[in-house]
Amino acid sequence: MEKHIHGGDVYHHQGCIDFSANCNPLGTPEGIKKAIIESLDHIGDYPQVGCAPLKEAIAEYEHTKPEQVICGNGAAEVIFSLCRAVNPKKALVPAPTFAEYQQALYSVDCEVEYFPLEKAKQFALDESFLQALTPDVDIIFLCNPNNPTGLLVEKPLLEKILDRCQQLGIFMAVDECFLDFVEAPEAYTLKEHLESHQNLFLFKAFTKRYAMAGVRLGYGLCGNRALLEKMESMSQPWNVSSIAQAAGLAALKEKEYVEEGRRIIFEELAYLKKELTELGYPVYPSQANYVFFEGPENLYDQLEQKKILIRDCSNYTGLSKGYYRVAVKNHQDNQQLIRALRELQK
Amino acid sequence: MEKHIHGGDVYHHQGCIDFSANCNPLGTPEGIKKAIIESLDHIGDYPQVGCAPLKEAIAEYEHTKPEQVICGNGAAEVIFSLCRAVNPKKALVPAPTFAEYQQALYSVDCEVEYFPLEKAKQFALDESFLQALTPDVDIIFLCNPNNPTGLLVEKPLLEKILDRCQQLGIFMAVDECFLDFVEAPEAYTLKEHLESHQNLFLFKAFTKRYAMAGVRLGYGLCGNRALLEKMESMSQPWNVSSIAQAAGLAALKEKEYVEEGRRIIFEELAYLKKELTELGYPVYPSQANYVFFEGPENLYDQLEQKKILIRDCSNYTGLSKGYYRVAVKNHQDNQQLIRALRELQK
Repeated sequence: MEKHIHGGDVYHHQGCIDFSANCNPLGTPEGIKKAIIESLDHIGDYPQVGCAPLKEAIAEYEHTKPEQVICGNGAAEVIFSLCRAVNPKKALVPAPTFAEYQQALYSVDCEVEYFPLEKAKQFALDESFLQALTPDVDIIFLCNPNNPTGLLVEKPLLEKILDRCQQLGIFMAVDECFLDFVEAPEAYTLKEHLESHQNLFLFKAFTKRYAMAGVRLGYGLCGNRALLEKMESMSQPWNVSSIAQAAGLAALKEKEYVEEGRRIIFEELAYLKKELTELGYPVYPSQANYVFFEGPENLYDQLEQKKILIRDCSNYTGLSKGYYRVAVKNHQDNQQLIRALRELQK
Repeated sequence: MEKHIHGGDVYHHQGCIDFSANCNPLGTPEGIKKAIIESLDHIGDYPQVGCAPLKEAIAEYEHTKPEQVICGNGAAEVIFSLCRAVNPKKALVPAPTFAEYQQALYSVDCEVEYFPLEKAKQFALDESFLQALTPDVDIIFLCNPNNPTGLLVEKPLLEKILDRCQQLGIFMAVDECFLDFVEAPEAYTLKEHLESHQNLFLFKAFTKRYAMAGVRLGYGLCGNRALLEKMESMSQPWNVSSIAQAAGLAALKEKEYVEEGRRIIFEELAYLKKELTELGYPVYPSQANYVFFEGPENLYDQLEQKKILIRDCSNYTGLSKGYYRVAVKNHQDNQQLIRALRELQK
């Protein structure tokens, strides 16, 4: 029952440095921890149904409207909840990508067709995807930047996809959870199309931006109010804990922390790419807070023996053995990874 | 979007004493708060998928097996998750009862037939329910003790229902969330039938037993391992936060606290019933940690003006205006309720 298909399983790898989950390298801000501790005074009460204050704060942060926001017990819950409300019969999903889209689609008995991203194109999504958008498709999921590759889809292509989806009655779900860590998020987000495109849904998470994966808090943005209401009616009313609501409100004030995290990531992403390349691993051009590269088939085990946990990507649909993803962490941790890899080559 | 159909909405009734949610009157134990604070050191990590340590601790507490336990983001999530996995087409639910069964059933497009509990029988479930169990029914939900009445279903009747359900291929979901607060839970629980009856599912919550509604943690018990696996596969892997897992492990050690809470409830339940009866309200024979009674149609508003929040039960299917539920709280709070009611009669 404990099948673990993702990174971040520190529980079975005690004492390892965890490069398998991709969160802000600064760790959880003290302001969030403080807000959680303060929330304990009222922990006997049920959480606020509908998360109105949190939705307002998110809307202000995202420059959107509170009624376009839905909160969830992590972005993962929002993915499942969207699938239940849209109830698609056929989905088109690029491969490789984050496995929870498929899991959520399977949970509503939806057929999943994969759009294979080609190694020859460095697994980038290109215009050929447009041809795969046919009227029998009910929903597509795109991850931007993609997980595990860190590749971004350019906005003109995204907008062509969005328009074609709208013409064909296809729902378009775009996971922007890692967009907070790319250099120019505003050049890639589809936020400004929420009002005009009722078939568009965006996923966002607190998890990565504020390194608070253990709290569980994510959200969705959508201009289709009827859909959001359907999603809420298909879930329990208290899905977001009081602790998560308090943590979220505190997190949104941590603007300097986010900027500092981004600065570190940009520097360290360059460092890791350079070092991994110098070590001879084929490195893909990630623009996210993780690096995707190829390595020997036993690399995961070898690093685990050195108390370093990386993401073996062989269980991603569309990949095979020999693909890895490592989070961009702080310089000290990243150096330790590079040192360990260097030792393995001796 | 913030439609609130339950009690416990302290957010729109600031400064009120909340009699509308039914939790342990002792408030959240310090041991749980301490465990949450300690868990913050690792809040950057994802929660443990599958909750193995928590399941083991629950199994020990419940004298059942870890593989018979499923954990959720509150018992409410488990209710929704069960409905998704069973995917019933027709449900039979007594009325009045807790509204989330209906909400969860509607979320999977299940038809809900109500079995009306009769006022002439004080809304008690009796043998006539057996005749309503017909082969076209896929699932039934029973709440024991029932919410909002606090009435228990006797075990011989429960066992007859269980056997008839098994014969007819009907799934039986029993909500034992409030059973922790009745005088002899062991005389009413169906736990010992989990192994022999694959069609039985029990809901339990930490929320009420430990007054930690804001944390979100509940669980289900079921002997049908394939069903539990299906439920888990239809939900996100990180549905129970690290905070909730830590809180749950700490909570299960709070045995004296639970006993002390029970002692207070037994005393105060008697006190409230006696005082409400003396004030002339028709009081139903609740055996749970709340009292169900009849009162004037404006009682909710009158008490709200006196900063006391009670549960107006008029939105329960099967009830109408003039029915109320109040939690059994500590003596000081209960006295304040009675004083307020006395003043209203002056």
